[in-house]
Amino acid sequence: MADWVDLSIIDLESLKQRELEYRTELKQRILNVEQVAAERIPDKVPFFFTDYTGKKGCGCKIPRDTLNEFLKTANYNWKAGAKVSNDGSVGIGLDSAILPVRSVPNLRIVQSTDFFYPIVDDPEVMGMVTVSNVLSDLYATGTTQTDSMLMLLGVASKLTTEGDDVRTRIVGEFISGFKKGCDFANVGVHGGQTVECPWMLLGGVGTAVIPVESLSKLNEARANDVLLLTKPLGIRPIVNAHQWLHSDPERFKEHNLDEAQVRRAFLYACYNMARHNLIAARFLKEFNAHASTDVTGFGILGHADNLAKAQKGEVTFVIEKLPVLPYAQEISKSFEDRNGFKLFDGTAAETSGGLLIALEKEDAAKFIQKLKEFGIVGHIIGQVVKGDSNGNRAILLKENLQIFEETGVTDHFEEF
Amino acid sequence: MADWVDLSIIDLESLKQRELEYRTELKQRILNVEQVAAERIPDKVPFFFTDYTGKKGCGCKIPRDTLNEFLKTANYNWKAGAKVSNDGSVGIGLDSAILPVRSVPNLRIVQSTDFFYPIVDDPEVMGMVTVSNVLSDLYATGTTQTDSMLMLLGVASKLTTEGDDVRTRIVGEFISGFKKGCDFANVGVHGGQTVECPWMLLGGVGTAVIPVESLSKLNEARANDVLLLTKPLGIRPIVNAHQWLHSDPERFKEHNLDEAQVRRAFLYACYNMARHNLIAARFLKEFNAHASTDVTGFGILGHADNLAKAQKGEVTFVIEKLPVLPYAQEISKSFEDRNGFKLFDGTAAETSGGLLIALEKEDAAKFIQKLKEFGIVGHIIGQVVKGDSNGNRAILLKENLQIFEETGVTDHFEEF
Repeated sequence: MADWVDLSIIDLESLKQRELEYRTELKQRILNVEQVAAERIPDKVPFFFTDYTGKKGCGCKIPRDTLNEFLKTANYNWKAGAKVSNDGSVGIGLDSAILPVRSVPNLRIVQSTDFFYPIVDDPEVMGMVTVSNVLSDLYATGTTQTDSMLMLLGVASKLTTEGDDVRTRIVGEFISGFKKGCDFANVGVHGGQTVECPWMLLGGVGTAVIPVESLSKLNEARANDVLLLTKPLGIRPIVNAHQWLHSDPERFKEHNLDEAQVRRAFLYACYNMARHNLIAARFLKEFNAHASTDVTGFGILGHADNLAKAQKGEVTFVIEKLPVLPYAQEISKSFEDRNGFKLFDGTAAETSGGLLIALEKEDAAKFIQKLKEFGIVGHIIGQVVKGDSNGNRAILLKENLQIFEETGVTDHFEEF
Repeated sequence: MADWVDLSIIDLESLKQRELEYRTELKQRILNVEQVAAERIPDKVPFFFTDYTGKKGCGCKIPRDTLNEFLKTANYNWKAGAKVSNDGSVGIGLDSAILPVRSVPNLRIVQSTDFFYPIVDDPEVMGMVTVSNVLSDLYATGTTQTDSMLMLLGVASKLTTEGDDVRTRIVGEFISGFKKGCDFANVGVHGGQTVECPWMLLGGVGTAVIPVESLSKLNEARANDVLLLTKPLGIRPIVNAHQWLHSDPERFKEHNLDEAQVRRAFLYACYNMARHNLIAARFLKEFNAHASTDVTGFGILGHADNLAKAQKGEVTFVIEKLPVLPYAQEISKSFEDRNGFKLFDGTAAETSGGLLIALEKEDAAKFIQKLKEFGIVGHIIGQVVKGDSNGNRAILLKENLQIFEETGVTDHFEEF
């Protein structure tokens, strides 16, 4: 048998270059979405990918309690709540499945699948978001090199009725974005499944096979750790407000929002979703992360709670700050009738959000400094304290919760 | 690093026992479907799982040519047609993706995903069929031990409107069947994704990590080999006729078919689809298979053609016989207006069909004998001849094509 090939150390300069090229291409596409649409199908401008689904992004997810009911009925001996076994295996409940390779005891399969429906209107950007979202689960385990990607695709029946040309163009652009995301992550698309579906169904399966030693810690958070978050929050209110611009202009007007600001916020949201958590994953072990997860459908509080419950020690995760995307606060405040999309409760669904990491304060400072070199703004948003009689969990400060606008994303667009 | 664990040799007696238990449980469920439905939702008897989709089984698959158009538009450098690389890797096009593990050069990831919509009306049987169908791609490579299964589930919106009780019961039964299939294959369900979808979407992702030596040959078929098939054909005509019994009784009557025979044929079809190709996979290497694939959506001729094209040598696969399920011929003949569902052309879509194997004649005889010990009836259905100027391909005899009813399946039901 040949030697191990150590893939855990990716050359930092080439990674920086890759990241810069990817985000430059991403920004150009985001800024040119309307131009692209105009050249694509002249009689269908603007084009709304989100018109080809009844549910958007991670909002299609069946709630965990419902899933538990299904499993109970199936006499399936599993309940929600992630558990990390002594051998480092992780079952259903945390981000990725981590399991031993039966034929080689100290290897682990790290694997995750995600599929959902369009949440942004440009097919290529949506392809990039899809890959970023699928791989995010693997990044949360410290996996920086994925071996295989499968593409899951359901082509909307409605798109078929609009003619082969339109369908081929739209699906082709999605695949092109999917490919760009995989190229950035240095993973090939090795297969998948393509079917017809009433809604446009988009997803992937990421699989890595790595030595157990190269995984970062997942369940060793302890009191006095701080909580580091690597992307700002607020996808849901921004995407919804942007959607109403065309789907329900009357409703939009009632909220007295600034249309230009909403459009601008949406660009930042797309950018935020399509960027990978690869860089953060790369430094998890180097800066001694004790636990990490990625923030998606259950919101920052939901995922913090899930991660807290998986910890070995008795801990409570206290969230004290919410860094949010530009204009996300204004939008949320204007939707009092919908509870501000739950942004201020910490339960607003994110799509392809950042990593939430528990680690020592000094390590966090170094981690944030390192992320900055790659154009990523990390924030300490809370701390880990000793658990109480309520068991392991996460809480969000009610009074003194600090909400602030994260402008690191806007700075990137200033470069243009 | 610990030693290899050789998983390629499964103890035959325990395998025989597992197979017997699985098929006994399967038969009992199939024979009691109406009883189960009556006890489940008294005001909804009979229950038709196939009412929760617009497309059935593998019939939802986007044709390969269309997929190629998508990929072309995406500037994706791939075309249909399986290629086996020198290192044993297999890209998109054959049954499973086979690719090297980057960190351990002589390991291979064998992986396949499939998702589709209900093709049978009992959720539990459908769960068993789903797993059998997903793993079939891995079995075709000689993989007898899968390391990980992910479950892909889209819960039909219509089911949600019928109330939580109904939904939980139906989805629970599907998961129960899925679990039974995985138990038989000795693989755990390690995660997945569950979303809402207009159609009931069912699928899985199977992943195995195995030493390259334990894979069977895929591209070494040669002249004078024979072609062995391990399950009878005819799923599509039977499923369609059965469907019309309730969806379009008038149309059914016009065809002068025997209702009892159609119902009986449907039982055999369910049984056929839910049985795994594990036993056949187990003997691929032992009987020196030169190439193998599983028969699904493109029909026996389509998959034979695909496999022929992947061969190193210049070969033509000639199909001379079609073993079909009881009553499949009668149904097909009565549907002249629909070209007999293409059964006699060899292109009728199968779901979870058998393995098609190229090997030497003497080995085939031993293989068939061995399968018989496990209650599986294999048939030599054709031969491999030297290729001609048309390139590697498969053809179906036009004259002298022998079509015959395979009664091995019915024998199993006599045991009751």
